[in-house]
Amino acid sequence: MTVRNLFLLPGDGIGPEAMGEVRKIIAYMNEAKNASFVTDEGLVGGSAYDAHGVAISEEDMQKALAADAVLFGAVGGPKWDDVPYEVRPEAGLLRLRKDLKLFANLRPAICYPALAAASSLKPELVDGLDILIIRELTGGVYFGEPKEIIDLGNGQKRGIDTQVYDTYEIERIAGVAFELARTRNNRVCSMEKRNVMKSGVLWNQVVTATHKEKYADVQLEHMLADAGGMQLVRQPKQFDVIVTDNLFGDMLSDVAAMLTGSLGMLPSASLGAPDAKTGKRKALYEPVHGSAPDIAGKGIANPIAMIASFAMCLRYSFGLVSEADALEKAIANVLDSGIRTGDIMSSGSRQVGTAEMGDAILAEF
Amino acid sequence: MTVRNLFLLPGDGIGPEAMGEVRKIIAYMNEAKNASFVTDEGLVGGSAYDAHGVAISEEDMQKALAADAVLFGAVGGPKWDDVPYEVRPEAGLLRLRKDLKLFANLRPAICYPALAAASSLKPELVDGLDILIIRELTGGVYFGEPKEIIDLGNGQKRGIDTQVYDTYEIERIAGVAFELARTRNNRVCSMEKRNVMKSGVLWNQVVTATHKEKYADVQLEHMLADAGGMQLVRQPKQFDVIVTDNLFGDMLSDVAAMLTGSLGMLPSASLGAPDAKTGKRKALYEPVHGSAPDIAGKGIANPIAMIASFAMCLRYSFGLVSEADALEKAIANVLDSGIRTGDIMSSGSRQVGTAEMGDAILAEF
Ligand SMILES: CC(C)[C@H](C(=O)O)[C@@H](O)C(=O)O
Ligand SMILES: CC(C)[C@H](C(=O)O)[C@@H](O)C(=O)O
Repeated sequence: MTVRNLFLLPGDGIGPEAMGEVRKIIAYMNEAKNASFVTDEGLVGGSAYDAHGVAISEEDMQKALAADAVLFGAVGGPKWDDVPYEVRPEAGLLRLRKDLKLFANLRPAICYPALAAASSLKPELVDGLDILIIRELTGGVYFGEPKEIIDLGNGQKRGIDTQVYDTYEIERIAGVAFELARTRNNRVCSMEKRNVMKSGVLWNQVVTATHKEKYADVQLEHMLADAGGMQLVRQPKQFDVIVTDNLFGDMLSDVAAMLTGSLGMLPSASLGAPDAKTGKRKALYEPVHGSAPDIAGKGIANPIAMIASFAMCLRYSFGLVSEADALEKAIANVLDSGIRTGDIMSSGSRQVGTAEMGDAILAEF
Repeated sequence: MTVRNLFLLPGDGIGPEAMGEVRKIIAYMNEAKNASFVTDEGLVGGSAYDAHGVAISEEDMQKALAADAVLFGAVGGPKWDDVPYEVRPEAGLLRLRKDLKLFANLRPAICYPALAAASSLKPELVDGLDILIIRELTGGVYFGEPKEIIDLGNGQKRGIDTQVYDTYEIERIAGVAFELARTRNNRVCSMEKRNVMKSGVLWNQVVTATHKEKYADVQLEHMLADAGGMQLVRQPKQFDVIVTDNLFGDMLSDVAAMLTGSLGMLPSASLGAPDAKTGKRKALYEPVHGSAPDIAGKGIANPIAMIASFAMCLRYSFGLVSEADALEKAIANVLDSGIRTGDIMSSGSRQVGTAEMGDAILAEF
């Protein structure tokens, strides 16, 4: 069996604690299941800035590029609020996405039945919710040029960002959405603001054409992104797969995540195109939550999103589908048994810390 | 008493029906209260396109510019889905905002107690909700240039939109937010994506500086716009005034509107700068809801958002504060009495049509 190279970037805040629980699972899989994972580890975000003065070092970038998959924790915190823009913690994540060409961000918004009551929405609206948001991740306003602040004199400055999308970028992310919809409920809703944005007009046209040419069997709907945000709040279960651009995806996936009442539970996968020769995709897996500096280092953070991100890694990078299923099932079982970290605590449940939650999941795995 | 000039643009779909109910209130105020409203009426959106081939005629633009206030219904519908981009229904609204220089969009998200149960959120999270979103309306990605689709050859196109904000644009919208916060709970939350957008960096700096210079008595908080969307869903009552840019304001105000469970109830005001001589602001008032083509012409649309928009007009354009209060109170009373249009119907209430709802509010006024 070939070796599986994982590059771990725990990052800042609760990132390292959450990653620790994944390390336990990796060790177990190597020992008990001969999984042949080989791990290396680097720095990203504030911790990289403290060590190297940049948000990720060249050496770690090379390791990320060489790995079969990157596991990413979280970055940022008040300590680095005033570092220069180019080396702010987020720059490390954005560079990884861009240089690894991870154009497809998969963000499942799943409501675990055991947690439906934790949502701010009425339980019947979210119980059993299972949406997959496909966010374009290497284009749009995140990376378009010009992106600058110009001094106009007279005390006036001008801030400029540019949203750019080319046909091929829209085509390939639409393709991912349609392919994944076929493995689910076969429905895609594409969201943009074609009534205001020219990139939205092109987005709409290319998604429509891609659908017609190759995926006519999938049900396709278009929605304006503002209406989409509303509909997510009103009736989230109407959606199966949502495909949208980088900035709308950022906003809409966060709203969707919050609907589930389980922000500390949600994983994500960021995938590149399949390599022409090997068919392998570059990939990075990260929890949707941030670095939560307020609770960092206390051993109370919820490691589930990070563990669920590793389950996505098993599924998408290594084709270990039954292991991924088993790990996800272990998470659901532990929740059903009433074990909770503080962020999802409810009366009648048993509150545990990060390590105990990780151990409980490992025991069920 | 001087004459008060209102220019009515009912638009498409349910716009004309809803505007009809406002006309009744205007007539009543002229008759019973000597209000001296003089109304003229024009076409906008699809109906303007059908009549003149543009989304608003030059003649109507001149009338809008000359009026003390514009009342706007709604635009759009499937009939005009394929008209050229430059003359699509929304172009009429965008031109009005731009040419009247209506940079400040006020979007209250209020949850009427009688309707708290209609929200998809748990009632205790929204009952008594009262947020004011201040959206910048004449800048950002809506109007920045370049804004185009370029043919790159090889079957590839490139869609480009440009987000641009100058210091003075941020300063003046921040000023509106701080001023209005002082009349409320004295708290402002500014939202941007400074971790990704240079315009967000400038936004953050200018709001901070404006606060420090002139409004240090107001409590100011900054939030990333994606986190802001989450927090709106999680705990909406934490907010008093939110100030944000054109595109984030579009998304976030729609999410906030949906939280109230009363989309058909929410008004908005779009204001220009005070005239140097007269102190008067150009202004346009419009419901947050769209043209709802599916129910247009049936006499069942909810006119409350349009009537509440007229209440904002009384307050902000004419300083008729007690009349505005009375009209808003009339709406709340009618809801308390259990009268409902179909969109907000619940068991035990009495369902009425557009005209009957308008009459009931007028009777309470
Ligand atoms: C940390 C930040 C740069 C990032 C983004 O805006 O993409 C985050 O919000 C996310 O959604 O992954
Ligand atoms: C109709 C459309 C152009 C408009 C916008 O995007 O501003 C609408 O969504 C709004 O919020 O007023």
